[in-house]
Amino acid sequence: MVVTQTDGRKRVVIEGISPLIDGGRFPAKRTLGDQVRVEADIFTDGHDSIAASLLVHREGSDEWTEIPMQPLVNDRWTAAFRVKELGRYGFKVQGWVDHFETWNRDLLKRIKAETDTPVDYLIGADLIDAAAKRASGSDAKWLHNLAEILRSDVDRKQLRTHATDPLLHEVALQYPDKRFATESDHETNIVVDPPHARFSAWYEFFPRSTAAEPGKHGTFADCERRLQYIAEMGFNVVYLPPIHPIGRMFRKGRNNNPEAQSGEPGSPWAIGSEEGGHKDIHPELGTLEDFHRFVRKAGEIGLLVALDIAFQAAPDHPYVRQHENWFRKRPDGTIQYAENPPKKYQDIYPFDFESDDWLGMWEELKDVFLHWINQGVTIFRVDNPHTKAFPFWEWVIAEIKRSHPQVLFLAEAFTRPKIMYRLAKLGFSQSYTYFPWRNAKGEITTYFTELTQTPVREFFRPNHWPNTPDILTEFLQIGGKPAFAIRLLLAATLGSNYGIYGPAFELLEHRPLRRGSEEYLDSEKYEIRTWDLNRSDSLRELITAVNFIRKNNEALQSDWSLRFHPTDNDQLICYSKESEDRSNLIAVVVNLDPHHTQSGFVILPMDELQIPPDRAYEAEDLLTGNRYLWHGARNYVELNPANLPGHFLKIHRQLKVESDFEYFL
Amino acid sequence: MVVTQTDGRKRVVIEGISPLIDGGRFPAKRTLGDQVRVEADIFTDGHDSIAASLLVHREGSDEWTEIPMQPLVNDRWTAAFRVKELGRYGFKVQGWVDHFETWNRDLLKRIKAETDTPVDYLIGADLIDAAAKRASGSDAKWLHNLAEILRSDVDRKQLRTHATDPLLHEVALQYPDKRFATESDHETNIVVDPPHARFSAWYEFFPRSTAAEPGKHGTFADCERRLQYIAEMGFNVVYLPPIHPIGRMFRKGRNNNPEAQSGEPGSPWAIGSEEGGHKDIHPELGTLEDFHRFVRKAGEIGLLVALDIAFQAAPDHPYVRQHENWFRKRPDGTIQYAENPPKKYQDIYPFDFESDDWLGMWEELKDVFLHWINQGVTIFRVDNPHTKAFPFWEWVIAEIKRSHPQVLFLAEAFTRPKIMYRLAKLGFSQSYTYFPWRNAKGEITTYFTELTQTPVREFFRPNHWPNTPDILTEFLQIGGKPAFAIRLLLAATLGSNYGIYGPAFELLEHRPLRRGSEEYLDSEKYEIRTWDLNRSDSLRELITAVNFIRKNNEALQSDWSLRFHPTDNDQLICYSKESEDRSNLIAVVVNLDPHHTQSGFVILPMDELQIPPDRAYEAEDLLTGNRYLWHGARNYVELNPANLPGHFLKIHRQLKVESDFEYFL
Repeated sequence: MVVTQTDGRKRVVIEGISPLIDGGRFPAKRTLGDQVRVEADIFTDGHDSIAASLLVHREGSDEWTEIPMQPLVNDRWTAAFRVKELGRYGFKVQGWVDHFETWNRDLLKRIKAETDTPVDYLIGADLIDAAAKRASGSDAKWLHNLAEILRSDVDRKQLRTHATDPLLHEVALQYPDKRFATESDHETNIVVDPPHARFSAWYEFFPRSTAAEPGKHGTFADCERRLQYIAEMGFNVVYLPPIHPIGRMFRKGRNNNPEAQSGEPGSPWAIGSEEGGHKDIHPELGTLEDFHRFVRKAGEIGLLVALDIAFQAAPDHPYVRQHENWFRKRPDGTIQYAENPPKKYQDIYPFDFESDDWLGMWEELKDVFLHWINQGVTIFRVDNPHTKAFPFWEWVIAEIKRSHPQVLFLAEAFTRPKIMYRLAKLGFSQSYTYFPWRNAKGEITTYFTELTQTPVREFFRPNHWPNTPDILTEFLQIGGKPAFAIRLLLAATLGSNYGIYGPAFELLEHRPLRRGSEEYLDSEKYEIRTWDLNRSDSLRELITAVNFIRKNNEALQSDWSLRFHPTDNDQLICYSKESEDRSNLIAVVVNLDPHHTQSGFVILPMDELQIPPDRAYEAEDLLTGNRYLWHGARNYVELNPANLPGHFLKIHRQLKVESDFEYFL
Repeated sequence: MVVTQTDGRKRVVIEGISPLIDGGRFPAKRTLGDQVRVEADIFTDGHDSIAASLLVHREGSDEWTEIPMQPLVNDRWTAAFRVKELGRYGFKVQGWVDHFETWNRDLLKRIKAETDTPVDYLIGADLIDAAAKRASGSDAKWLHNLAEILRSDVDRKQLRTHATDPLLHEVALQYPDKRFATESDHETNIVVDPPHARFSAWYEFFPRSTAAEPGKHGTFADCERRLQYIAEMGFNVVYLPPIHPIGRMFRKGRNNNPEAQSGEPGSPWAIGSEEGGHKDIHPELGTLEDFHRFVRKAGEIGLLVALDIAFQAAPDHPYVRQHENWFRKRPDGTIQYAENPPKKYQDIYPFDFESDDWLGMWEELKDVFLHWINQGVTIFRVDNPHTKAFPFWEWVIAEIKRSHPQVLFLAEAFTRPKIMYRLAKLGFSQSYTYFPWRNAKGEITTYFTELTQTPVREFFRPNHWPNTPDILTEFLQIGGKPAFAIRLLLAATLGSNYGIYGPAFELLEHRPLRRGSEEYLDSEKYEIRTWDLNRSDSLRELITAVNFIRKNNEALQSDWSLRFHPTDNDQLICYSKESEDRSNLIAVVVNLDPHHTQSGFVILPMDELQIPPDRAYEAEDLLTGNRYLWHGARNYVELNPANLPGHFLKIHRQLKVESDFEYFL
């Protein structure tokens, strides 16, 4: 341990800073306008008073804002700031021994005990003079004068009056002696994203399945016509599977047939053909101009466009000819296709992240993002990021967000927990989750508590999907329409970010390829589908209602306030969310059983939710408009899934009762 | 983020390393011969196999030992090593993608599915040849030959035989391709202390209270005679309050009287007079020669001597004249004494750790330790370390342990939790604890679980004291002899390190200065006391038994195996400890009520403790010699505190039963 001339006198300790991810290795995430509450353990030896500041700046800037920290209990201190610009912030914590405050505190005790002596005031005079030297202008003069008074011949009563002047306290503390201040070891960084990183409703659809004429390949013009339908349901992000030319070599046919019949369209994820690669548009969808018009139209009606970025190549992708060394060569001269032995995916060549030209490859892949950003795209859903090298993601996301801080990346990694969390730490703005497979009350409670009530929430922003083109869960296969409704209600309220793959979702598509599989029969991944959007059993109306309620209730627009509440029936789950100012409180009750009516008592923590325990309050069901008069913590609920499997209850804490009216006026 | 030429291809992630204290800022603690179990989360992108190593060295040495890590579950890996020398070790973790192992794993699947093709063997040949290039001698040759065989014209059966040769697997994995290996960001350090840092029984006594003649000032010669008494009780550390000249200015009298009467001896913690300071011996105790003889005598009968180091000065300490700038001057020219307004401690001058000459002062204080180390002292009990600057402790302990790794420091800080933990992180080998004030079952369970089952145990080594010269708890004041016995049994079994302040403890000294005070009436801190060691009510015999049992049962010699077990009576506490090899299992049951007999059922977790659930087992009470035949998890216990308030039960898991005997031989 090397001791420098100042180290030894830095008596204040700063530790246990939060937020702090992996010791400061990764930034925490916030959205525009959020409050960042910083805490730290700050203390010193002995009995001296200390003071502490939170120092905040835009990353890279020399302009720091200083915010005084306040003590909580057990040597924990706190301060908060709001992030008002996109991009990166940084903060550090500073603490120091405050001799003036120590003197002031002790003097008050001495005066109370009538043990103050002239030397106590002389000590104060020296401290005040030192503060005067750090001050300037009128403060300096005023402090110096006060010091002189404490040194003069005035009587004890006057000494006391001057020394305990609240103004003295206020002014002197503005000029602290920071010569021996301690600073936190590392700067913590905060990435600030646009608000839709926190609150978004996604709608995924296959552009080619939008033509009016059954079986015909849809175009961007058809997609434009689809936008109104999506916007009316209340979504704010439309996400398209890859829109690039589709490989012809080893093209997959209907229901993942290894050999496509002539005319079959292939999988959009087998990217690249002689028509182009990741920066090009599949000719049957239209031109770049058509795409521009589609993006513009979406924007006009409040929809952001998210593109799918899948970094892999079909064998006929131009990269394969132009950059042979980005792929792994086998000893027989062929290129290694993707496989999970004994399964082979000969239509897909993975990039080799151990390539000698990895840096050149990284630059080109970054350029793919930049290309689409230049076409007006600001959200990317990244396909299987966990099969590409982790250092690449940290680099490429940081590079892009430096110049385009509004851009978001959604990680489509359905893999082991630590890998999913690592990708989020590396920079992904949102992440898919295990939600599709969390159906029972205990599973949901445990998982969502981990996501919203532990430090995981600092870096991992969940985006919950009841279905995707790859995931048709057993629950949806067997539960009928109520199952779809249940999963919708849960996704949209447990998560401020959620999405559905439509029209498969609203049209209750539930037939699996075979028993035990989560693949769809006649999956859109391999063929063009035609959907009757006006079917009478569509969930469209319920979806519209749910999204409308989300938009009008701030409580449902973030996840950190999520709290689960007991019920006496394991098929009934109950939880609540609140707005930051606590004025908007929503309690959700869902029947998890798609087959039977379930009933029971839900128990709300009156104290924690600030519901007055001594009078009735109103629970207004925002889905049905029904109003319930509830009393106390325990209230009865009954939900028939065939009708509607959940309540979204807006809790009106204050209900006017008789005594509120002034009869006698 | 700067990307270097190698970073981008380091595909393995290493995180969540344990032990790791504050991100590697502080070392973990172990004792000689301990096992250090290291764990880390290690994974990579995609589906490649990975391998990992733990690299260990003595701090500063270039010689690293490499230990292969083994996977557990959920991407967690582990390896362990034993520390065989005092001083500091360091370790790091290394992980890499293993292409040979990936090929080998996949080939086995292909062979099983009958899909292996010639190119698969060519790929293997290249990987084996690459390993051959990293190998040398016969391994290199052998590997190269095998690669050639895989490239030759042999039939598939032979290819399979050669490629799946277990010897190939074994040899090739010895020469991994670590070009793109990832290393953990920080080296974790381990401080290795002597075994008595983990397992010790301390006995504190005032040297001046040892004279045979009542009222006479004891000498080191008297202390020598006291050693046998202490050793016979089974202690291994004798700790002496300060042995330095005692200040005369503002000397405190009997019962902390602000003014001493002539002839009163003063407090040993008011250090320094014209006879000398921290490196000198109080003349009435004897000479340096006498002290040497005392230390030697102690060593001969198995006792280590611990000295009290209290860094503060009486007004007549030589430092005050020689180093005026080590103390804070007041504007009237006087030196600032210690105070806690309105209380004044005019007999004590604290050092000013903000002194301009702080570095000179640090060097001198370090020299105090070195001085006593040169006199044969290897343990220091440091008085109120929390009122001295934290950076000083980190520096001085590291400095001293660099050349004297056997030296231990016990932190006497009874203060707020985060400060106590910080001192331990900074280097204190052992720490006093809140044990004196943890009396109820819930309090004890919570506190000792925190100390022994959380990461706190990596740096904080508890030393539990039922009493000290400053602490006479209410429990001891009101509980009579059973209270002393209860606290002894708890301290000595909950903690592998414990201590008592005697003879006050064994002679049941329990009269407070006044009601509500934890100070003793007629405290030895301010006067010479005479003790009748042969009093019939002495706890000497019980203490002897307890220390004997600790010495003979490895289970009680460390704390990490401590587990609490349920009882159906809140006045009965039950817990167990095991030896590392699990052969020695001790269950302790204590009646926490000093006044009444308490009884109830204790419930042992049969599975966890590896007790066969289907036959009787023996619980042998080591305190009484009584043997109980227990069945199953629930067994009845009854303890009369007037007799003996606890059981120390040695559990004999295997009890011979009828069927074990071979009647028919």
